[in-house]
Amino acid sequence: MSPPPSAQKAAKSRNDGVAAYMHERGEKARAAARVMARAETGTKNAALFALSQILIDEASEIQAANAADLRDGRSAKLDEAMLDRLELNADRIRAMAEGVRQIANLPDPIGELGDLKQRPSGIQVGRMRVPLGVVGIIYESRPNVTADAAALCLKSGNAAILRGGSEALRSNLAIARCIERALTDAGLPRDGVQVLDITDRRTVTELVSMPQYVDVVIPRGGKGLVAAVSEAARVPVIKHLDGVCHVYIDGEADVDKAMAIAVNAKTQRYGTCNTMETLLVDQAIAERVLPELGRIYLEAGVEIRGCAATRKLIGEAVPATDEDWRAEYLAPILAIRVLDGLDAAIEHIATYGSQHTDAIVSENYSRIRRFLREVDSSSVMVNASTRFADGYEYGLGAEIGISTDKFHARGPVGLEGLTTLKWIVLGDGHVR
Amino acid sequence: MSPPPSAQKAAKSRNDGVAAYMHERGEKARAAARVMARAETGTKNAALFALSQILIDEASEIQAANAADLRDGRSAKLDEAMLDRLELNADRIRAMAEGVRQIANLPDPIGELGDLKQRPSGIQVGRMRVPLGVVGIIYESRPNVTADAAALCLKSGNAAILRGGSEALRSNLAIARCIERALTDAGLPRDGVQVLDITDRRTVTELVSMPQYVDVVIPRGGKGLVAAVSEAARVPVIKHLDGVCHVYIDGEADVDKAMAIAVNAKTQRYGTCNTMETLLVDQAIAERVLPELGRIYLEAGVEIRGCAATRKLIGEAVPATDEDWRAEYLAPILAIRVLDGLDAAIEHIATYGSQHTDAIVSENYSRIRRFLREVDSSSVMVNASTRFADGYEYGLGAEIGISTDKFHARGPVGLEGLTTLKWIVLGDGHVR
Repeated sequence: MSPPPSAQKAAKSRNDGVAAYMHERGEKARAAARVMARAETGTKNAALFALSQILIDEASEIQAANAADLRDGRSAKLDEAMLDRLELNADRIRAMAEGVRQIANLPDPIGELGDLKQRPSGIQVGRMRVPLGVVGIIYESRPNVTADAAALCLKSGNAAILRGGSEALRSNLAIARCIERALTDAGLPRDGVQVLDITDRRTVTELVSMPQYVDVVIPRGGKGLVAAVSEAARVPVIKHLDGVCHVYIDGEADVDKAMAIAVNAKTQRYGTCNTMETLLVDQAIAERVLPELGRIYLEAGVEIRGCAATRKLIGEAVPATDEDWRAEYLAPILAIRVLDGLDAAIEHIATYGSQHTDAIVSENYSRIRRFLREVDSSSVMVNASTRFADGYEYGLGAEIGISTDKFHARGPVGLEGLTTLKWIVLGDGHVR
Repeated sequence: MSPPPSAQKAAKSRNDGVAAYMHERGEKARAAARVMARAETGTKNAALFALSQILIDEASEIQAANAADLRDGRSAKLDEAMLDRLELNADRIRAMAEGVRQIANLPDPIGELGDLKQRPSGIQVGRMRVPLGVVGIIYESRPNVTADAAALCLKSGNAAILRGGSEALRSNLAIARCIERALTDAGLPRDGVQVLDITDRRTVTELVSMPQYVDVVIPRGGKGLVAAVSEAARVPVIKHLDGVCHVYIDGEADVDKAMAIAVNAKTQRYGTCNTMETLLVDQAIAERVLPELGRIYLEAGVEIRGCAATRKLIGEAVPATDEDWRAEYLAPILAIRVLDGLDAAIEHIATYGSQHTDAIVSENYSRIRRFLREVDSSSVMVNASTRFADGYEYGLGAEIGISTDKFHARGPVGLEGLTTLKWIVLGDGHVR
């Protein structure tokens, strides 16, 4: 965590190169992880409250570093969306500090011990929640992730290695200095959170290839980053791939609820992973809902790509191809398919979906029950907008990411996703 | 699941080879998994009870197939231990059938829905337990694993691809025919459990490289198999590596409990992963326990490798090297180290242990609390023998394996390890 001007050069001039640099980071993280794991709740919270305050106190230094990143970004002709994500203004720094404070106020998951069960042998058996150990987080332009990820790892008793984007290096290192101060002020090891001060691509390859030092890696960024990390990973990855979310309007849906949900799931925000990308409509109700839904979507500027039956009811719809059923548009485009009831809807979702979030709108108990049971997605909803698939909406208090995997963590992942359970056995001299 | 004589040849003569063979198995498993996932408890149990009965009814056919495997095994000069593991006599077939019946009698984990929480937005949120999907199991000579693994996967609503050892192929396929009959009799898809009828090494490489078809792979066998599978895997692996288990006798231990546990943890069985391999003794109590423990171990035929302090108290002990602290002997050999209290013991376990199972013997509340919290092993025990680290002893009812990983499942893994949780959201027209 040395200051930026010399860091990149210094690191590159090391004889041993990136691999040695990363192994050193790994070793330090592994050692710090033991201290973080046994840190008391009060100590961790003290570090988090301190960090929240230091971010406010150092806002002008952070903004100065950020201004330099932005200047370089403009010279490098980064696009406007990327520059926007990169920018840390006073409001965003306050929001970042507030986010850290909220994480401090969450209950500490570590040390929780589930019901101890008495076994016939006389021993008592239960499970205690413990940290995973060392968490690697790889992210792109948004520098606020540095504070957010550090806070989540700290609260869950993990050590963290954070690898941000090169375009945000100065901003990330300015935040890293705040984190370091907060950790040391609270008596925690400075290596509890390490922000990499070089952004060579090989830092990523090394980070995901050190199972001896890293227990899990979480890529937070675009599909390209996530796919590259997953492909190279020799350690477990909590990953988020596509969000091809469906709303199925059943023949026995309440029309008002169906309209409200179908509109909200598509138009509340276009670029989020839990936005509906394909609307499925039972042919029994299509004539009653599609013409009006079509008008609302078109008014909102949503392009409609439909099957033949859809195009009969919405004249402006263009023909949908097989690719449209698989598309995650993240844009004001919607695919609509009219089909023959629940089985066809479940089949469509199994064939084309991405197991992210899918909703049924229906008043029919048996169909709802089957949809809940048979749709194999991380979130399955009844009469609610897919837009609710979110750690905050689910009451997790914070979200480290949304997992589209089935293993370990599925759907919105909060602090619990950064923990695991170990078995505790209490005896009184018991032997087998 | 065609009969063995022609299968191996037939498969090898396919133009498309092993990869195509495995992809076909994967596709069939993925399709069957959807049916298995929604199968009702009664249907799954009917298949399991049927399998238990068919195994008994077909015992002579299974034994005939097994006799042919044993004959070939003897010609191939397999060692006695391997031939013993391979053998299926009448008792073992009855035990296998009884094991399947016990799994039928376990509660069905699938469909369980945790507390639904009411959120401020008005939605209700909870999590439902669902199958992982397709489980691949790779195992060695014991053919009873075929029935056991099939039953565990079936009960947990998963489809299974089972790949046994070449030396047990005929036995495995005889059991596979029983499984197929049980599945079809109960109205479940025959592809719900597929036993590979070729044992080409590349079947393993393919099985662990098909994330589109396989959700998790569990290698059940020696360290070599587990390491090879983990190295090649592109899908999650539930793996069991070393069991370097410790008992730490604290200075404030009850001597009787300490003696009982230290003897049991080493001598009850030598070849199991939860057997103690290193005994750690606080110097404050070493003189009171080690001389007698030494006598008991030596009488039981256990070789002792000790530090200098140990050798002063047990004359017959030979010097321990650094390698002994890392050794999983699986044999009547024990490493003993005298050290300076709790911190040194925790440090020793962190340095040399394998995070499997470690126990403290003490009456001191604060030291016990620290040991429980700070020892990062899948099972941490107080005043109990490490030999209790076992799915049956923990009340899981069945055990698919013991995981030394931290991710997803840790320690003894029962049916729950073959499941995951999906989010359920219930609304009434709710939108964001």
